[in-house]
Amino acid sequence: MRVITIERKILGKNDEIAEQNRNLFLQHKIFVFNLVSSPGSGKTSILERTLEHLAGTINVAVIEGDVQTDFDAQRVAKYNVPVVQIVTRGGCHLDANLIRDALQKISLDKLQVLIIENVGNLVCPANYDLGEAVKVVIASTTEGDDKPLKYPEMFRNASVLLINKIDLLPYVNCDLAALKRNALQINPKLTVFETSCTTKQGIPDWCEWIAGKVPSR
Amino acid sequence: MRVITIERKILGKNDEIAEQNRNLFLQHKIFVFNLVSSPGSGKTSILERTLEHLAGTINVAVIEGDVQTDFDAQRVAKYNVPVVQIVTRGGCHLDANLIRDALQKISLDKLQVLIIENVGNLVCPANYDLGEAVKVVIASTTEGDDKPLKYPEMFRNASVLLINKIDLLPYVNCDLAALKRNALQINPKLTVFETSCTTKQGIPDWCEWIAGKVPSR
Repeated sequence: MRVITIERKILGKNDEIAEQNRNLFLQHKIFVFNLVSSPGSGKTSILERTLEHLAGTINVAVIEGDVQTDFDAQRVAKYNVPVVQIVTRGGCHLDANLIRDALQKISLDKLQVLIIENVGNLVCPANYDLGEAVKVVIASTTEGDDKPLKYPEMFRNASVLLINKIDLLPYVNCDLAALKRNALQINPKLTVFETSCTTKQGIPDWCEWIAGKVPSR
Repeated sequence: MRVITIERKILGKNDEIAEQNRNLFLQHKIFVFNLVSSPGSGKTSILERTLEHLAGTINVAVIEGDVQTDFDAQRVAKYNVPVVQIVTRGGCHLDANLIRDALQKISLDKLQVLIIENVGNLVCPANYDLGEAVKVVIASTTEGDDKPLKYPEMFRNASVLLINKIDLLPYVNCDLAALKRNALQINPKLTVFETSCTTKQGIPDWCEWIAGKVPSR
């Protein structure tokens, strides 16, 4: 119980700062999403395909969260968008305060979309509001079809599910219908896209969804 | 700093109980390993192939850790071994106290190997000693080759690395040599096996390694 009490206090403080971040985003008319998944589900690859597809049409910036290394920021920087790397040095999730600090390094004036790539972790980031409009969760076909039931909090708190590595479906033990059914059982409001960063299947639809969320000015 | 201080206290208490668990295992001559990985890397599948291979030769019991559901315990129970399911209800890792409680439900007398399958999480379980002899980390080829560098603590604290889903190598963006090099850069003492639960490649060698760790009586 001691641990839970402390955690509640930390989350309370986090939620306060998240609300301040959210107000800042609203004020600047920026659509912000928080990209979450297991390690290796393809968050950075989805990000790369997304930046490629949106290039020249929408102003995007990226905040990269990693336990260690700035590999992801290096990959993203190739797409000529502003990118800030947060290294948590062992920390298992991003929090609103880290995002507030990172925002000091990004010009918000012409920004339309901010993508936050969280630490690869299907558990802890579920409970930390960063001030984003929505959480987007990736589940890859290679992880099997039972993950929404086994890690329900993340799927419950997300608005969008990307079923990624859809091109690998013939080679893996994953029932696509079951995966969707399990996800929608946890959260019937999920918008679902099937994506592949190799064949680019689903990337245009997913990017169209993002474009539809950009506030008009 | 406040958070770190609290965390240290919790870990201190955890380490005390882990040490008691470890003494209990030594006393009963039981080899215990803690199986850790991202969600969907194949922990339960490796466990199934391992139980299948060791059946009739070594007495094995299993403690299953999951955030939610007892699916894994149900899968493991088919192999006619004692299995205890711990559901953490949102908790991101197992701790020594949960293992101590689970041990009340397992007869240790003729047991030779105890396998603890941790919650799917490549970050938090790295710091929690459960009293095991070694941590065994799984990295699947589908997760790419950079995970040891991005999540170093887990690879640093493990003794064995199973490179799983080796059969999917032709279909995924993973340089096997780079994956090994990255893992050994973080921890040069890692024993590495390449495994596939589909083709059973590497399972005999891995099981031979386990058999070699069973204390003589």
